[in-house]
Amino acid sequence: MKQYLKHHEWHIIEEGLNPHYNQVSESVFSLGNGRMGQRANFEEDYSGETLQGSYVAGVYYPDKTRVGWWKNGYPEYFAKVLNAPSWIEIKIKIGDLVLDLAKCKVESFKRVLDMKQGLLQRIFTATLSDGKKVSVDAKRFCSMADGEIGAIRYEITALNFSAPITLTLPINADVVNKDSNYDEKFWEEVTKAAEPGWAIVNAATKKTNFHVCTGMQYDIQSAGKSIKGKVSTHVREKYADNVIETDLKENIPLTIYKYVAILSSENHAKDKLVATCKSKLKEAVTSGFEKLFSDHAKIWAHKWEECDITIDGDVAAQQGIRFNIFQLTQTYTGEDERLNIGPKGFTGEKYGGSTYWDTEAYCLPFFLSTAEPKVARNLLVYRYKHLGKAIENAKKLGFKEGAAFYPFVTMNGEECHNEWEITFEEIHRTSAMAYAMRDYIDYTGDREYLSEFGLEVLIGIARFWNQRVNWSDNKKKYVILGVTGPNEYENNVNNNWYTNYLGAWTLRFAMESADYVKQSNPTRYNEIITKTNFKDTEETERWKHIVENMYYPYDADRKVILQQDGFLDKELIPVKDLNPADRPLNQKWSWDRILRSCYIKQADVLQGIFLFEDDFDLETIRRNFDFYEPLTVHESSLSPCVHVILASKIGYKEQAYEFYLRTARLDLDDYNNDTEEGCHITSMAGTWMSLVKGFGGMRVRNGQLHFNPFIPDQWKSYSFRLEFRDRVIIVKVSKDKIDTVLEHGEPLEVIMNGKPVMLKSK
Amino acid sequence: MKQYLKHHEWHIIEEGLNPHYNQVSESVFSLGNGRMGQRANFEEDYSGETLQGSYVAGVYYPDKTRVGWWKNGYPEYFAKVLNAPSWIEIKIKIGDLVLDLAKCKVESFKRVLDMKQGLLQRIFTATLSDGKKVSVDAKRFCSMADGEIGAIRYEITALNFSAPITLTLPINADVVNKDSNYDEKFWEEVTKAAEPGWAIVNAATKKTNFHVCTGMQYDIQSAGKSIKGKVSTHVREKYADNVIETDLKENIPLTIYKYVAILSSENHAKDKLVATCKSKLKEAVTSGFEKLFSDHAKIWAHKWEECDITIDGDVAAQQGIRFNIFQLTQTYTGEDERLNIGPKGFTGEKYGGSTYWDTEAYCLPFFLSTAEPKVARNLLVYRYKHLGKAIENAKKLGFKEGAAFYPFVTMNGEECHNEWEITFEEIHRTSAMAYAMRDYIDYTGDREYLSEFGLEVLIGIARFWNQRVNWSDNKKKYVILGVTGPNEYENNVNNNWYTNYLGAWTLRFAMESADYVKQSNPTRYNEIITKTNFKDTEETERWKHIVENMYYPYDADRKVILQQDGFLDKELIPVKDLNPADRPLNQKWSWDRILRSCYIKQADVLQGIFLFEDDFDLETIRRNFDFYEPLTVHESSLSPCVHVILASKIGYKEQAYEFYLRTARLDLDDYNNDTEEGCHITSMAGTWMSLVKGFGGMRVRNGQLHFNPFIPDQWKSYSFRLEFRDRVIIVKVSKDKIDTVLEHGEPLEVIMNGKPVMLKSK
Repeated sequence: MKQYLKHHEWHIIEEGLNPHYNQVSESVFSLGNGRMGQRANFEEDYSGETLQGSYVAGVYYPDKTRVGWWKNGYPEYFAKVLNAPSWIEIKIKIGDLVLDLAKCKVESFKRVLDMKQGLLQRIFTATLSDGKKVSVDAKRFCSMADGEIGAIRYEITALNFSAPITLTLPINADVVNKDSNYDEKFWEEVTKAAEPGWAIVNAATKKTNFHVCTGMQYDIQSAGKSIKGKVSTHVREKYADNVIETDLKENIPLTIYKYVAILSSENHAKDKLVATCKSKLKEAVTSGFEKLFSDHAKIWAHKWEECDITIDGDVAAQQGIRFNIFQLTQTYTGEDERLNIGPKGFTGEKYGGSTYWDTEAYCLPFFLSTAEPKVARNLLVYRYKHLGKAIENAKKLGFKEGAAFYPFVTMNGEECHNEWEITFEEIHRTSAMAYAMRDYIDYTGDREYLSEFGLEVLIGIARFWNQRVNWSDNKKKYVILGVTGPNEYENNVNNNWYTNYLGAWTLRFAMESADYVKQSNPTRYNEIITKTNFKDTEETERWKHIVENMYYPYDADRKVILQQDGFLDKELIPVKDLNPADRPLNQKWSWDRILRSCYIKQADVLQGIFLFEDDFDLETIRRNFDFYEPLTVHESSLSPCVHVILASKIGYKEQAYEFYLRTARLDLDDYNNDTEEGCHITSMAGTWMSLVKGFGGMRVRNGQLHFNPFIPDQWKSYSFRLEFRDRVIIVKVSKDKIDTVLEHGEPLEVIMNGKPVMLKSK
Repeated sequence: MKQYLKHHEWHIIEEGLNPHYNQVSESVFSLGNGRMGQRANFEEDYSGETLQGSYVAGVYYPDKTRVGWWKNGYPEYFAKVLNAPSWIEIKIKIGDLVLDLAKCKVESFKRVLDMKQGLLQRIFTATLSDGKKVSVDAKRFCSMADGEIGAIRYEITALNFSAPITLTLPINADVVNKDSNYDEKFWEEVTKAAEPGWAIVNAATKKTNFHVCTGMQYDIQSAGKSIKGKVSTHVREKYADNVIETDLKENIPLTIYKYVAILSSENHAKDKLVATCKSKLKEAVTSGFEKLFSDHAKIWAHKWEECDITIDGDVAAQQGIRFNIFQLTQTYTGEDERLNIGPKGFTGEKYGGSTYWDTEAYCLPFFLSTAEPKVARNLLVYRYKHLGKAIENAKKLGFKEGAAFYPFVTMNGEECHNEWEITFEEIHRTSAMAYAMRDYIDYTGDREYLSEFGLEVLIGIARFWNQRVNWSDNKKKYVILGVTGPNEYENNVNNNWYTNYLGAWTLRFAMESADYVKQSNPTRYNEIITKTNFKDTEETERWKHIVENMYYPYDADRKVILQQDGFLDKELIPVKDLNPADRPLNQKWSWDRILRSCYIKQADVLQGIFLFEDDFDLETIRRNFDFYEPLTVHESSLSPCVHVILASKIGYKEQAYEFYLRTARLDLDDYNNDTEEGCHITSMAGTWMSLVKGFGGMRVRNGQLHFNPFIPDQWKSYSFRLEFRDRVIIVKVSKDKIDTVLEHGEPLEVIMNGKPVMLKSK
């Protein structure tokens, strides 16, 4: 845990250069716009610790799988998030000395992420080894108004000298991925060019042959006037630049504007990339930094109107929740149904893949509530488009007849992960796709989604469960053997309750959905049964039998759900009695010891209760919470949010607040000592849920919004905004009252603390 | 399955060149002498499919671990069997054409392994592309009389021409391991030298810095007289040779004798290696091929006197059993307690490591019965010497106070394996060390071994089990959670019966052994308790409690032992109902499917019954056999032998014979389609057990030999020899009678079919 960042309502602020935390800051201060993103690397040279990272959405490399012992069914490759061509560099040489903060005396240093406007700024004063002192004010943004544009304004001032200055402005595709399996470089050159004023590198990924064309054009001003300087251009493999020699005069700021366009073949014909890049650069230069920025900031202002949460009386909490919302918003804008929400977003390369079940289980509610419905819908359509691959994946593992098994980690619908206990056995994830549909339909009322896309997916998933269960003669029930639940600190267990419950629910939901489509849209229904070869009566008869005869592990003495068969054979010693030196277990204990212990990474019984809350009475929820919470080590960033929500529900307010603290500032305070690899983007949506569904008690039941808010003692008030069926609703919770305002849209009845309230716009 | 080798009582014969099976033959026809070994690669060039392999016992390379996802506790490296410097090469150029069977018209080709004398011979006639026809008769052996000597006699005759011939005789350390994790070469040069007449390369392994000095001296004869030819020498990195140019005259054989000495720093001071190598070469040349060979063949004759098994009426079976005995005998001679029995012996590099639990569980009985007691004893002492490492290994995984956890795979006592479900969870192997002691003591009567070495090991292992069990409040028993049994088609299961039984037995055996040493040798006992800090009363009290309260899964309805908790939740469909296209499962099914199926790689319940046979009545054995046998796919080469023994015991004679066939010619007929990687050396000892303990019904009970022989219908008679407590006993079983002969030693009472018989020497 590190607490070196300053608290502020809208800004993330680092004061003073912290070389050891630099990679953490590079993650935290990352920028993105849904299409591309960039870690907060310095523009000028830096020889200290750094993880260079630039990312272009949808562009990946299939890195050859590396395993110790191959298992049948493992994927051939792991689709890696690519470190894309570097565009931010502005290398500075003053006289003969390179400006490199690792080699300067740094008098002052401030890094600020203005979340309100999506702007990264760095201001510093540094003295070079020859005594020359400069100040720099560097700003940049990735345009929300045009996802292919980035812009930098880099102002340098000589404070105690005048001297020649050499500026190098490159585009560099000769970059590496730190986590390359075999130390391979992933980019190849297509073309490159540099003329005075601009440079372009068009690079292609090996194997996948995505083309990414990155170009820059610049403007240099001194005392407000453009200057030329002496320009030379250089190209080498995968690299092009302009080098400008001019004079830096004491106290006269030199301002470099670097305009960048990053275009991918995902959005442009390959043979048009270079030309389009050039024309976009020209437009950008014509608009200028200020205009580009104001267009960008306008979009942010609008985004915040949709999704802001305010917390009064706790600046750290206010900053934390806004940081989570900011990162989620710049990671996924919902405009492109081919994209998804990577676990590190645009803040790091770790974990590769773009899509985990995190999207459906954690992120969807955020996007449902803070953006127009098409954003969440696109997340569903993304999986619909991967249905064919999910069926292939199931087939590869021995399933038949159109069973769909969605991958654990994917880019293009194919499985990437290669640990058998996860890849093959963490099967609950395939039903996250079904649950997300239910969530989407409940929230938006768009039940027609089932006809258009949903039912096909549900039939595939239901078929998977139908084949994955087996009848136990011993138990006279259907069982599900050999699985890993969301609690990944148990592997290859039998009858993980969460998995069994979700599997049976999926079969039921698929049957109901089939009935619905059959009734509401018989033509489309017939299309679907033809396309999927769905023998509805026959298939659903067995589904029904499974639903009615599924086995659920339960302890009648304690009246608690059992996480899995045999759970009670463990020694149940609460986490609080563990030696703190043993924490976190995943860094201190060998894997077998974790597996046979009672300790839970994230409590999947509680996760299941959270997802199907209405199936359980309050007493049951409390009993299970009291049993599992003390055994949970929360070593998944996805864990605490569920505990906030359930603790809130059963009135454990202090505990709810404690869990909230763990999730809200996870990256800002580098709680798990791993933020240097990137931020935990998907768990940020869990933080949002913690507040809205936890403290705010927001639920949708039968198409109606419910709230049961409480306010933590530590706060004066908080408010959140929801987009809900063409309305915008603001709920403000203070110590003594709850204000619910319909900011926009037709009157709406909501249920506040169990009572109907009619909201009308002002 | 391939059946291209000819049946013969003493020879393995390949007739005709089979390029596609060449790597299989290279494995099968391998030679070794306990100190070194060599695959049956050709002496001359061969551009077809081949796996070059030369191995020196005890010399290994720690190859950096390769995994997809690191788990705490994984070893840093995997100790690999090294492909050692190549010494067999005799490259032939006739005119300008290289002799390469892949590029010739091969008129005739015969490869013979004479198992009686340990000689590999190859005879062929081939026509080069220019029409020149040659015949070759090549013989070689790895001397059993001097483990550092190899010799080749290579005779080539021009059949239809006379022409210049160029012979290249290299020593080449520039070799690779096929299974190198990162395509690294493992050898570095120390020195090299070549003078007319000889060449030497002294090479060192990277990291481990073993030095292996390989040298050759030669003699070339034409028409029985030594000739010189025009000699040039060449050296390059890790390589030295002699090139001899002479004339090959029509129908006058040219005979090349290549004498090789291979010395390792395991047996010589590093600075003496080259000098010793030279003097050994000189001696070898002086002795000459015939003398070296007759010394070698004498040792083989003596070995066969100790261990031969004859089968009358079934040449394939006779060849099979002798092949197994031959390979075992040339893999391990028991002269060096630092060595062990690698799973591939000297026939391939696969699986690395030299030592698995195979040694104790499968190989020990063979060496106990066919060699003097010190051979088996050295296998035990090997583990005693690794006790410190086993304690370290346990500590690394969180065990305390001198608990000893022997590695699953090792070279030097450190764990090499890196699959959590095996490395951390296949814990039964640590007790194989205890069982081997019992086996050794039962057989030899050498109970003093416990005082000298055994008890220290037993205390360490017992402490492991003591900490590895946990009390289940639920079951009111001790349980063992999260293990993999010998049946590796189940991972991370709870209460694997075999593991629980073996663990409890170990605790009991450790207590009895401690008592014995305490009574019989109090001084030594005090030394041991001081050295190990053994608090005997206190520690054994808890051990006793565990032994008395261990949980054993059992099905009261079927009255069968359960392989593990939850086994009966599986669908129990016998193997015979599987689609043959699904076999072998490990090549056809994904891992999860195997895990949740009922199919058993090797039946560990039956393995446990085999090890502790006297604890079970015949009816119990039969019931469990009837339950588990139909579910067993025998996809471990170690599986069928146990089934032979139990089937024999319960009178299932035909089944016993069927299982025997699976194990006896496993490599000769390439049953599992993997012999190209090397032979299954350790399972060969299982074949021996199948015959002696299965058909022969041999057991030792209370220091006395028991026999309950039967003869398969397909055989006329069979006989086996046993060394037992300074006697040599021959048991010959015919259709109508059993002859038991004491060939050597004091009179001995044995129990034949339940009745005492006094054996006296003739």
